[in-house]
Amino acid sequence: MHQPAGRPAATAFVPGHVTGFFSAHPAPDPGAAGSRGAGVALSDGVTVTVTPGSGTRLNGETVDIAPVGTVLDRLGTEASVEAETPLPIGSGFGVSGAVALGTALAANAAFDCGRTENELVEVAHCAEVEAGTGLGDVVAQARGGLPIRLEPGGPRHGTLDGLPARPRIEYVTFGELSTETVLSGDTDRLSAAGAEALDELLAEPTVDRFINTSREFADAAGLLTDDVSEAIEAVEAAGGQAAMAMLGRTVFATGTGLSDAGYEPTVCRVDAAGGRLVDRDA
Amino acid sequence: MHQPAGRPAATAFVPGHVTGFFSAHPAPDPGAAGSRGAGVALSDGVTVTVTPGSGTRLNGETVDIAPVGTVLDRLGTEASVEAETPLPIGSGFGVSGAVALGTALAANAAFDCGRTENELVEVAHCAEVEAGTGLGDVVAQARGGLPIRLEPGGPRHGTLDGLPARPRIEYVTFGELSTETVLSGDTDRLSAAGAEALDELLAEPTVDRFINTSREFADAAGLLTDDVSEAIEAVEAAGGQAAMAMLGRTVFATGTGLSDAGYEPTVCRVDAAGGRLVDRDA
Repeated sequence: MHQPAGRPAATAFVPGHVTGFFSAHPAPDPGAAGSRGAGVALSDGVTVTVTPGSGTRLNGETVDIAPVGTVLDRLGTEASVEAETPLPIGSGFGVSGAVALGTALAANAAFDCGRTENELVEVAHCAEVEAGTGLGDVVAQARGGLPIRLEPGGPRHGTLDGLPARPRIEYVTFGELSTETVLSGDTDRLSAAGAEALDELLAEPTVDRFINTSREFADAAGLLTDDVSEAIEAVEAAGGQAAMAMLGRTVFATGTGLSDAGYEPTVCRVDAAGGRLVDRDA
Repeated sequence: MHQPAGRPAATAFVPGHVTGFFSAHPAPDPGAAGSRGAGVALSDGVTVTVTPGSGTRLNGETVDIAPVGTVLDRLGTEASVEAETPLPIGSGFGVSGAVALGTALAANAAFDCGRTENELVEVAHCAEVEAGTGLGDVVAQARGGLPIRLEPGGPRHGTLDGLPARPRIEYVTFGELSTETVLSGDTDRLSAAGAEALDELLAEPTVDRFINTSREFADAAGLLTDDVSEAIEAVEAAGGQAAMAMLGRTVFATGTGLSDAGYEPTVCRVDAAGGRLVDRDA
């Protein structure tokens, strides 16, 4: 498409993504590295606008998000990146992956980089893996829905499926967990629990089973914090189901699980589309 | 998710899909059969509601859409299928594929069939191929956006990519072409032209190139009718770009191509999400 007259600019939206369970699969080639697991793409996400210039801002503040620079380098561009999100940062919503993928989609459109969707997802996935800020958010955020990562890696290596459901989602956040710290530690126990959870989900691919296996995973992987554990138990006591977002001190529930337990959660829906350009003239 | 109280029911939306160019790839296994090519998923689509009962209705009229019965059989269910669409029938918009995929998504949700998204797309794709009503619409309609079918087949065999763009789309329809008649004839010339068009698109994966290669394909494959040819030439004379929808006497253009040429087109957008359940309580 021809660019509108004036300064090139483009905007992309990428959903937030909470992972319920995962196994880590490092590899020398970042395109082959990634995770297996399952999660939810959220209607709360990150809007990324790219224009000529430099610097990255998140909700108006100058930030250094390592994958963003890598994405722009790989596309052979320099740009100013403005990201806006209502999501908590560092709390398991895949904000860094969303900014990376949104930057790739918007920069490609603004500067006519001529890449396909798979190529842009690959660039963002590799940038995220190299920075150590995530392993599987980008491919899940590109697909949308309730993505199942069957095989790890970017589009050239990975395989995705999805749960065909669109539950209402509630979430509360108690604070940050460092993805880098967990992923750079011993992930054997975590990955064994994640592989088991995936087998259980594929035996009965429903939302109920997804939340159940996710809850069991957080416990088995030794990642539960006291506040998260308390909230999950409160939801269950009220007759609902909840799990922990990997990796953050965040609890998510389907339906009215957290409300029924007396919390005041943020409410959103499943984002079916995944990362995409925003129609600027819509 | 728990079903709401009362009669099980679910609704899915599947975008219409116009193919710009394709090559046909028959195979004994319908999951491996399909087409390579590229097209556009449209915000005009088909809404499918499944409830207990029997019979298929399209815009209120009882119809026999062969793939629908196959999909329900494979899911082990019987159902009443109500499909509604503003799209012209038999004119290259993939309505049969949309009804097949919508039936699969909605029946799975209404009757707890426990299939994943890929499994439902596979069922709908195979039903469409077996009926001879289409080769590649279902996988494209499941992905959304501007899908590129790199390798033919359902999710177990095929490979998709996409053009990262969201142009405004205009279309006019002059009448029907029979998909079955074209696909059951000699497709060698058509497929050679389709393979060449795909190579050209992948060398420069942009919307402009997609429309250009599609226009050249319709000519090279010998599928142009006089009314379609006249409309495409009129759009070009007015400075725009248009192509023919495979397989129908339908012309589609980006931006305001058909309006600028004096036609009164239907206007829609790209559907980014692809086939999905509709939130009934949204």
